[in-house]
Formats: sequence, structure tokens, C-alpha cells
Amino acid sequence: MSAPGKAGEPKEQRLTEGGRRTRERIIETAAELMFHRGAGGTSIPDIQAAAGVSASQIYHYFGDKQGLVLAVIDHQTDAQLARQRPLLDSLDSIEALRAWCDTAGSRQDARGCEGGCEIGSLAGELADSDQSARARLVSAFDRWEEPIRSGLARMQARGELSEHADTAALATALLAAVQGGMLLSQVRRSSTAYRQAVSAVIDHIESHLVR
Amino acid sequence: MSAPGKAGEPKEQRLTEGGRRTRERIIETAAELMFHRGAGGTSIPDIQAAAGVSASQIYHYFGDKQGLVLAVIDHQTDAQLARQRPLLDSLDSIEALRAWCDTAGSRQDARGCEGGCEIGSLAGELADSDQSARARLVSAFDRWEEPIRSGLARMQARGELSEHADTAALATALLAAVQGGMLLSQVRRSSTAYRQAVSAVIDHIESHLVR
Repeated sequence: MSAPGKAGEPKEQRLTEGGRRTRERIIETAAELMFHRGAGGTSIPDIQAAAGVSASQIYHYFGDKQGLVLAVIDHQTDAQLARQRPLLDSLDSIEALRAWCDTAGSRQDARGCEGGCEIGSLAGELADSDQSARARLVSAFDRWEEPIRSGLARMQARGELSEHADTAALATALLAAVQGGMLLSQVRRSSTAYRQAVSAVIDHIESHLVR
Repeated sequence: MSAPGKAGEPKEQRLTEGGRRTRERIIETAAELMFHRGAGGTSIPDIQAAAGVSASQIYHYFGDKQGLVLAVIDHQTDAQLARQRPLLDSLDSIEALRAWCDTAGSRQDARGCEGGCEIGSLAGELADSDQSARARLVSAFDRWEEPIRSGLARMQARGELSEHADTAALATALLAAVQGGMLLSQVRRSSTAYRQAVSAVIDHIESHLVR
């Protein structure tokens, strides 16, 4: 669930149960359309038709299309993190890091490497053109990176990872490998690039293990 | 320069010098607009207005918008590789790898980390929606990855890099780090993520050095 009261979602705090369900249906429909066509390629009439709602309902809940885009970013971030749990919350061993990355690789294989990363795709499209979206994407990547960093920090606190390892930098490097690897895999229609990208960074993290 | 005779560029082989210049101006204008607004957000009338050409000239040279998009992918790939030369052709030492990545980081800093990667941005937008564009993007990333792989292979042939190192996989991992790092840096408006991402992979490559 998105936190209530954010910019672009002014009506969320006062919703009835029915209103909340309608709002969620609009977001889920918009997220699906934007995943396939991009935010720019998805119009309000497209969303109306697919969700079976009126334009005035969309404007009521989100103010404007930008408000809806922000809600979609939060929704995709929530969904991405929920899908990766509980693995994402226990990234405090090399084996756990490999299993987590492997799960995402298998998910790519299962869909023929189409679609790329739901958050990364929005980031590539919106980071320059929409400052509010960019701010929300900063938060999305921070929320994703935090459990990686936290897992590495626990390994370090237990003395398993060298005290010289920069766990924050390693977490960023792994998230970048996930993003870049997914993009190359999406283009090449094979998860090999993703698997090689994350393996290189996890091997590097492993080199910091205290033996 | 793009190779002549590719799909979507049927008229290239028969061009006069004036025609060649007009065609190049259309491509450069379209590339600039698509870099800022995406391919989907750039219309033929936008390109007409910015390049000072008629719609019939655009259709004459490129057949349709898709043909122009393909020409823009080739143009951006040519430009990207030309900009990275000669560093890109001498990636056969750890120092050369670091210098090459650092140059791209400085370029990002110089433009405030706006814009991301010209090729990666098109890839994120087009990989699923346009199969011809995806094929051209496969070629773009292959052309970019080849000199990285080739530099690592030369290090290995000279006995500097362990015979157990998978130079092709390491080259892919480094290109993925470049792509993912640039995306995170574009969102965060700081080249730190890019620098951490490529450093981790180059450190990993360095661990394969034969001491």
C-alpha cells in the first residue's frame, strides 16, 4: 500500500472501502498499461477503457495524469519489494544473495525476458522529463537498495565480511548490476547477461569474506 | 556512418552529396529530440519543424517513422563508440578500464547526470514494442561489448589475466554495470552510483590478475 497523503494523491485519506477499491483498480490497470506501452504511451482514455471508469473518477482520485504516474511508481515499487520478500530481507550470506538474484533470473526466463524491470523502465522514461516522478524513483531505488545494504552490514557486523568492505557501495553496485543486467537481457531475450552481471558483483562481494 | 543498404534506409545508396547531408541532418535532429523526449514522444511534425524539412523528405529517406528510429539507433551507436575511441580500443589493462569508465563518469557530471545513456534509453523504450529496433539494439550492445571483451582477451593472451577468467562474461558484466550505473545516476543526479557500479566489476576483473 502507498502511504496516504502524498502529493498527487490528495483524496486517499478520505476514501470509503468502495472508493479505495476503485482507486486501486485504476492504479493496477494504469501500471499494467504503462509497463507495456510506457507512461507516455498510455492515455487517460486508455486507462478509462481498460479499468471501466470515467475520466472524472481518475481526476477525482489522482488530480491529473502526473498524480496517477506517481501512484503507479509507488505501486510498482510496493509490488516489486513484496514479490522479492522474504528473500530480500535475509540477504546476509553469499548463498542468500545468489538465491535472490537467481529467483529474478528465473522470473525473466519465465516471461521470455520480455518487459524488463517495472521500476527501471519507468526510471528510464521519466527521470528527466518529470521531476516529481524522479523524486519518487529516488525513493523507489532507495527502498530497494536498503535491504541489500542492511544484509551486507549484518554480515560485516558478525565479522563475516571484511571491515574494509564499503557495504553501501557494494549494495549500489549490486542494484546497478540487476538493472543493467535486466536491460541487456531484455534486449537480448536471454537472462545470461543478467546472470553474468549479478554473478560478477556477488563474486566481488565474496572476495571480501573473512576466511 | 551507418552501413548502407540496411532495412529502413532504402534510399541511402543512391544519394547525392546534398541528399546525404539532408538525410544526416534529419537523423541528427531526430536523435536529439528522441534523446530528450523518447522515440514515442517525438512525432514526424516535431522532426520536420526542428530540421526544416518536409514530411515527404523524411518518408523519402526513411520509408516511415520506424525506419528513422532504426537510423537513429545506428547513429547513436556510431556516435557513442566514436566518442569513446581511442580509449575503447585499448582496454587491455586495469588502468585503461578505470580511465575509460572515469571518462564516462566525468561526462555525466558535466551534464548534471541528466539524459542517461543514449543507447540504453532507446533500449528501455523500444526493446519490447519494436522487434526491428530490438534487433538493431542487439547489434548496438554487441558492437559496444566487443572491444571490452577483446581488451580482456588480449590481457589473458599475454598471461596477465588468469586462464580461468571468462572474459566474455566479464565484458558483459562491465557493460551491464555501465548501463545500470548510468540509470541509477540519472535518477539520483549523481555519478556516485555509476562509479561504484563500474568499480566493483573492475575490482573483480583485477582479482583475476596473475600476480
